[in-house]
Amino acid sequence: MQPHDRATAEGILLTDQYQLSMAQLYFREGLHTRPAQFDYFFRSYPDYGMHQAGYAVTAGLEWLLDWMEQSSFDASVIELLRSKTTSTGKPFYDETFLEWLSEHGDLGSIVMRAVPEGRVVHANAPVAVVEGPLIMGQILETSLLNHLNYPTLIATKASRMVGAARGGPVLEFGVRRGPGSGSNAGARAAMIGGAAFTSNVGISQVLGYDPKGTHAHSMVQAYMAVGAGELEAFRAFARSYPDDCVLLVDTIDTLDSGVPNAITVFKELRVAGHEPIGIRLDSGDLAYLAIRSARELNRAGFDQCQIVLSSNLDELAIWQILSQIDAEASRYGVDPKALIARLVYGVGTRLITSAGHAALDGVYKLAAIENDGEWAPAIKVSENPEKVPTPGDKRVWRVYDNRGLATADVITQSDEDPAASTSMQLFHPHRPGSHRTLRQADISGLEPLHADVLAKGERLAGRPSIDEMRARRQADLDRLDPGVRRLINPHVYHVSLSAKTKALQSELVTRARETARDVADPQLSEP
Amino acid sequence: MQPHDRATAEGILLTDQYQLSMAQLYFREGLHTRPAQFDYFFRSYPDYGMHQAGYAVTAGLEWLLDWMEQSSFDASVIELLRSKTTSTGKPFYDETFLEWLSEHGDLGSIVMRAVPEGRVVHANAPVAVVEGPLIMGQILETSLLNHLNYPTLIATKASRMVGAARGGPVLEFGVRRGPGSGSNAGARAAMIGGAAFTSNVGISQVLGYDPKGTHAHSMVQAYMAVGAGELEAFRAFARSYPDDCVLLVDTIDTLDSGVPNAITVFKELRVAGHEPIGIRLDSGDLAYLAIRSARELNRAGFDQCQIVLSSNLDELAIWQILSQIDAEASRYGVDPKALIARLVYGVGTRLITSAGHAALDGVYKLAAIENDGEWAPAIKVSENPEKVPTPGDKRVWRVYDNRGLATADVITQSDEDPAASTSMQLFHPHRPGSHRTLRQADISGLEPLHADVLAKGERLAGRPSIDEMRARRQADLDRLDPGVRRLINPHVYHVSLSAKTKALQSELVTRARETARDVADPQLSEP
Repeated sequence: MQPHDRATAEGILLTDQYQLSMAQLYFREGLHTRPAQFDYFFRSYPDYGMHQAGYAVTAGLEWLLDWMEQSSFDASVIELLRSKTTSTGKPFYDETFLEWLSEHGDLGSIVMRAVPEGRVVHANAPVAVVEGPLIMGQILETSLLNHLNYPTLIATKASRMVGAARGGPVLEFGVRRGPGSGSNAGARAAMIGGAAFTSNVGISQVLGYDPKGTHAHSMVQAYMAVGAGELEAFRAFARSYPDDCVLLVDTIDTLDSGVPNAITVFKELRVAGHEPIGIRLDSGDLAYLAIRSARELNRAGFDQCQIVLSSNLDELAIWQILSQIDAEASRYGVDPKALIARLVYGVGTRLITSAGHAALDGVYKLAAIENDGEWAPAIKVSENPEKVPTPGDKRVWRVYDNRGLATADVITQSDEDPAASTSMQLFHPHRPGSHRTLRQADISGLEPLHADVLAKGERLAGRPSIDEMRARRQADLDRLDPGVRRLINPHVYHVSLSAKTKALQSELVTRARETARDVADPQLSEP
Repeated sequence: MQPHDRATAEGILLTDQYQLSMAQLYFREGLHTRPAQFDYFFRSYPDYGMHQAGYAVTAGLEWLLDWMEQSSFDASVIELLRSKTTSTGKPFYDETFLEWLSEHGDLGSIVMRAVPEGRVVHANAPVAVVEGPLIMGQILETSLLNHLNYPTLIATKASRMVGAARGGPVLEFGVRRGPGSGSNAGARAAMIGGAAFTSNVGISQVLGYDPKGTHAHSMVQAYMAVGAGELEAFRAFARSYPDDCVLLVDTIDTLDSGVPNAITVFKELRVAGHEPIGIRLDSGDLAYLAIRSARELNRAGFDQCQIVLSSNLDELAIWQILSQIDAEASRYGVDPKALIARLVYGVGTRLITSAGHAALDGVYKLAAIENDGEWAPAIKVSENPEKVPTPGDKRVWRVYDNRGLATADVITQSDEDPAASTSMQLFHPHRPGSHRTLRQADISGLEPLHADVLAKGERLAGRPSIDEMRARRQADLDRLDPGVRRLINPHVYHVSLSAKTKALQSELVTRARETARDVADPQLSEP
């Protein structure tokens, strides 16, 4: 495979075969231009095993819209498709279909509403709604999922780490263990989720941020191998970067070599009129070593020096380190608050891979299809009740209580006004009979969650800066119950259906089941 | 950020900031052109929690070499770097350094030896060795790790799934939950690891394989929403794809609707002179439903129809399903062997994310640097003994025993001939005193594992086909002890150091420790 082929594989053909099989079927059956609506949502929050997310942070939309603008069935794509054959060796695609694709098969026919990047989103509430001809909505599915699932997963993980770090600076540096070129999308998502910086030079600079980094063990090793030592390596670094001097102190021994050598160099720097930035600890008991290093730095007059921690950090590890510092630092004559204010967190693998839960279970489901000029709601009946989607042409609202905190996301039909009556009945999306009532008097705000982002080729969403998206996230987190933000066993945030939506769902399920034969429990039937 | 910026972020700047910081330091200190050797290896096999890999399958090399050919410090890259500032607002990079980079900073100065893609590789044995000027070897680190870690992880996972499937066809379809554009590298790696097909259209077609796929629930839903039903949807699919008809049977109810409707359509197809391909099961108890569906298909005369299984499959799930079919199928009058021979495995999320272990811990370590015209070995002393690297200019050999099975990978110094003496002493890389002796009489073969793949811009590795790489993998697996291939608690394959290499490692560690101050146990010292 030649390198230029890789670009082809990243365009409109970043899709699953069955989308194109169905596309041709819809074309042949005359259904292809039928307007349809698809919902993008995730079914469950990431569950990392010992800890779980109670919310997610949406990311990836801008790059999805870029992809949609740039991807089309151009001549080289059509040529590639022409080579596919049926099992009997005939061309798989008709020429009339390929012609249609090259003339009309562009994503400019799509209308999209979505929750803006950086916002807090919840399970089962549509994050994006796609409206367009059935055929293009179907072809878009795979790439939309690919562009939104992974970044949302990573933004969510980053947000948790920043929370565990009590808002302290998190530095993303996962590209070396990250998933190929997906690592750039991951680094961007980490920044949206609250990471202060990334070490990834390319993506950071094109996003307009200074990439951050210190030096590797290899620099100290190189000096040692040529007959010099750690101190000489540190001096070389200070010579090159007198105003950006962060030294990695664990190549030989953190407390017996790295920290004393760093302090020697820091003193020399100060004499020369420069303030050192800090040290980095990359192995061992990070809480203990941070306390001991802080004590040595303080004694030497460097009580403002940062201490960068790295080595398999995630939200629980950060939380544990800070708890340990809270409890232990004073014993060593170090003020825990002052120490924690100096910490920087370098997080690699466990952020870029969302360790413990490596994929968001986002799905893209047909919600409605136009029939006789009206939206006909679509349903899927499943053996798992939690897989029954929410049908119809819908809207999503965030409801704020009298404390100003978000209390529920509510899914209504498009013709419903949730503010119209004195109370709202909120139904559980899957558990029959489970509902609660909210009085309007207890509601301080009602916010439509979706913005129009795409209208048949016209891009309505701008290109918000990372800072803007981070601010959205912070504003949403400030309005989220602390119990929902909790790292372990968070409260379950309510995503509810309006009475009308619930009734529609129940009616469609019943109707679908009736079209099936009598349903016996397959587990109990005779062999 | 504009879309064209994304390409910039995927070139030579797909690196960590500290590589460029060190690069400039080496340049300023006159060390930049010093020849250096770096080893790429992983420290431990993926551990998925309840199960563990005993081997890995290397992948990603071809795309790494492509990236190296295409990436350079061109004008736009230099312009971007020029914008970075120090903490005091001065330009971070000197113009002389940027000039050097744009004139000499290309990866054409690199020589590389590596284990070819598709081969079985083991922890701690270098998979690739990079030789070149210190500065370029350092800059290459991040991207090399990015290009090799993730594909190796995915090829390994795929190989395990194919093993669990007893060699049956595994269909990769993870792009929707995959890590952004990294999913294409993942799909390719899955194919190298033994997946028969991928659903990912673009990457599959450019690799020269027919992408595979059936249809989604949404197709059945669409027909239901417009007043038709599952049977009509199936008929439409059969009309479009009479020779490639695979029907998804669980939109309403697998046994009471999907399978009977599929059989109706299959009969109609046969009357029209076409043989159906099969059905797909995507929810519920897949073993049970496969048996029951097979019984119905057999009774209707479709005993050759494939049964595609999907829904959160991984190697343990596949293994469990086959065990259940082995034990239960006969009770339903279905021959388990015949049924298993008809199965196809659709694997998505759990393959593309390597569920349970989402990152290979591959590292890239300075092994030697030229000093006075000789290779000076480099070392890093760590609080964790398993992080001490193997120093020097080395070679890696695979040793086959008298059964023809691989019994160890041995790391020697470049001037050693492992076949020279009548016996080889093999030392554990990290456990002091642990060694075993292999007599030459017990050795049936000694194979150098590395091939020359790159010699200063000249590409020596070809572009082997996926089939060629799959064949390498199969040949290696055939020569691997079944205990090492085992899914759970595999035998530990021996990766050993030659006596000379072990002695060098010990000597360097001692010397490095002596340069540090007296080492007290930090955990026991007084606060």
